[in-house]
Amino acid sequence: MNDVLGADVALTDLPLRDDLRGRSPYGAPQLDVPVRLNTNENPYPPPPELVAEVAESVRAVAESLHRYPDRDAVALREDLAAYLSGATGVTVSHRNVWAANGSNEVLQQVLQAFGGPGRSALGFEPSYSMHPILSAGTRTEWLPAPRRADFSLDGPQAASIVAERRPDVVFVTSPNNPTGQAVSLQDLRSVLDAAPGIVVVDEAYVEFCDEPSAVGLIDEYPAKLIVSRTMSKAFAFAGGRLGYLAAAPAMIDALLLVRLPYHLSALTQAAARAALRHAKATLGSVQALVDERNRVVEALRGMGFSPVRSDANFVLFGRFEDAHAAWRRYLDAGVLIRDVGIAGHLRVTIGTPEENDAFLAAGKALVDAASEESVR
Amino acid sequence: MNDVLGADVALTDLPLRDDLRGRSPYGAPQLDVPVRLNTNENPYPPPPELVAEVAESVRAVAESLHRYPDRDAVALREDLAAYLSGATGVTVSHRNVWAANGSNEVLQQVLQAFGGPGRSALGFEPSYSMHPILSAGTRTEWLPAPRRADFSLDGPQAASIVAERRPDVVFVTSPNNPTGQAVSLQDLRSVLDAAPGIVVVDEAYVEFCDEPSAVGLIDEYPAKLIVSRTMSKAFAFAGGRLGYLAAAPAMIDALLLVRLPYHLSALTQAAARAALRHAKATLGSVQALVDERNRVVEALRGMGFSPVRSDANFVLFGRFEDAHAAWRRYLDAGVLIRDVGIAGHLRVTIGTPEENDAFLAAGKALVDAASEESVR
Repeated sequence: MNDVLGADVALTDLPLRDDLRGRSPYGAPQLDVPVRLNTNENPYPPPPELVAEVAESVRAVAESLHRYPDRDAVALREDLAAYLSGATGVTVSHRNVWAANGSNEVLQQVLQAFGGPGRSALGFEPSYSMHPILSAGTRTEWLPAPRRADFSLDGPQAASIVAERRPDVVFVTSPNNPTGQAVSLQDLRSVLDAAPGIVVVDEAYVEFCDEPSAVGLIDEYPAKLIVSRTMSKAFAFAGGRLGYLAAAPAMIDALLLVRLPYHLSALTQAAARAALRHAKATLGSVQALVDERNRVVEALRGMGFSPVRSDANFVLFGRFEDAHAAWRRYLDAGVLIRDVGIAGHLRVTIGTPEENDAFLAAGKALVDAASEESVR
Repeated sequence: MNDVLGADVALTDLPLRDDLRGRSPYGAPQLDVPVRLNTNENPYPPPPELVAEVAESVRAVAESLHRYPDRDAVALREDLAAYLSGATGVTVSHRNVWAANGSNEVLQQVLQAFGGPGRSALGFEPSYSMHPILSAGTRTEWLPAPRRADFSLDGPQAASIVAERRPDVVFVTSPNNPTGQAVSLQDLRSVLDAAPGIVVVDEAYVEFCDEPSAVGLIDEYPAKLIVSRTMSKAFAFAGGRLGYLAAAPAMIDALLLVRLPYHLSALTQAAARAALRHAKATLGSVQALVDERNRVVEALRGMGFSPVRSDANFVLFGRFEDAHAAWRRYLDAGVLIRDVGIAGHLRVTIGTPEENDAFLAAGKALVDAASEESVR
């Protein structure tokens, strides 16, 4: 006897689409361990002033929660435009900005407008694994393209692949997740010049890198370029789910045709605006994380690991004979990092100095155990 | 000269999907007028206790906004299950419940899992206009089917149409928006028996009606039935964007394959849980709105209008020679109602007694002006 309503029916009994059969839900394990360095979150909690301002902003909008939110989130887009203008030196208008519940939703909307059945999207792998998943979800054909052996993007090769395959949408992740390297404006221009359709530059980790943002290229490529961003990483706002993009106003008009009406709650709009008012304080952690990243890279190298150059808040490192077994040993030591499916490699998010020390100590133990085994 | 980045590019210059060309974004006009009775919101603002609890709950989660939210929103689903159990008398588990940013996102996920290219969805029109829009957005073929002349659903006829057309997904809206009538369990059973695939009963307005909920049928039809709901209407939580559904656990497993990871923010989860703790107080407005609905229907009839029977918090009424011109005259009188595109009819949301009086007074002025013109 089963107490749960309808629990005698299995997934295989349902008329699920054939292309979904046998799949597993996306997502890193959400495990409760002392040191969580697996999803590239900012390790620093919001400061008390920000917490208070989020709560106060939400209280104010909660008085009219019985009303639908501003469907076009204009005030939030104005604040995001002001932040982008300050961060990039390019004057960005709210008409250049669109926002949704995380950059995943932003990118899904881009594919609904410019991809879909009979169209294709191309990305340089390994890269953010949601790009092919979002393409599958919108029935856009996925075209994987290679990187160099060191995981960096070969601009001229990328451009010639794009010219040959002619995808409707190209994804360029800069800095690239999960490998770490940023892409130069020169390489982006090569891809943009070759692309017949849309080029999405995914800048989720851009605040951690020195390369200039692709936002500066929008005026050169208004009919092609979309720059996506998120408040989940540098902004320490992963729980608030706010992704956004910058592009020509006509691109935003296109997204209005596919966005769900009232997709962004009054709470999200108010909380994100509060977080943006504290941008300077929050982003103060960026330099500390960059310094820690450089320390972790050096320490890994010192222990005999091979870290990949990173312009982000994480480091991909190897080489492991069996990366998944190594991931498990880190976990046994109370340190959750990420097996991103790249042979011989694991990815660690940069945490607080204490968390990074715990991670490095776990790595040291792995190395010592391995050398002991080889001596015996 | 144009100051906005990339503003010299027009929508027609972009490689938009052909099926989107020439379309307009969905949405009722968001106009600032004294009496807004156009989007079926609850006219009563959240009570101060609820506002305080939402703010306090958000403050608590804001301390860990740098972390991603619970991807599966288990605590919220437990609270929704408890509410549903109390409201329907059927024991509902969190494994029977799924939630997203508004019922639009819930329904989009259903179509991503069970609709899509090469599949079809059927609805009985006129009904909620997002059903065909979501079908188009997921490239699901839309099959419109008729209602009776009085806009009620003819159960046996509906079943025979479903048996003949064999859609992958059937939408039954009960109470129906924008016409108002609920569907009996007997009629739902006829449709469920005839359906080869999924049947979504959209119960967005169910709290305002006396018919029992379709949740009671899940155990009979676990491989077919999904019951969708929203906190936007009776719960007075439109600004919080929380839609949900009840179904067999395997249905939820299917949706996990298509949902965007971390689609529901920590803020939304916390605020919705706070609102659910105040369900009894909030839903206290339901009876007052039902009483006002009955008063408005009587008054409309007394003025010579023809209101359609309603089990919801709105009334469709006619007949107008030119419904859009009449809509404009209500607006000129400071009363925003909805032209839902049904010839000769307009839809009014039930508001506070004062708002309803303003609406009825504007209608009276219309009738008087018309009779004066015909006398002259």
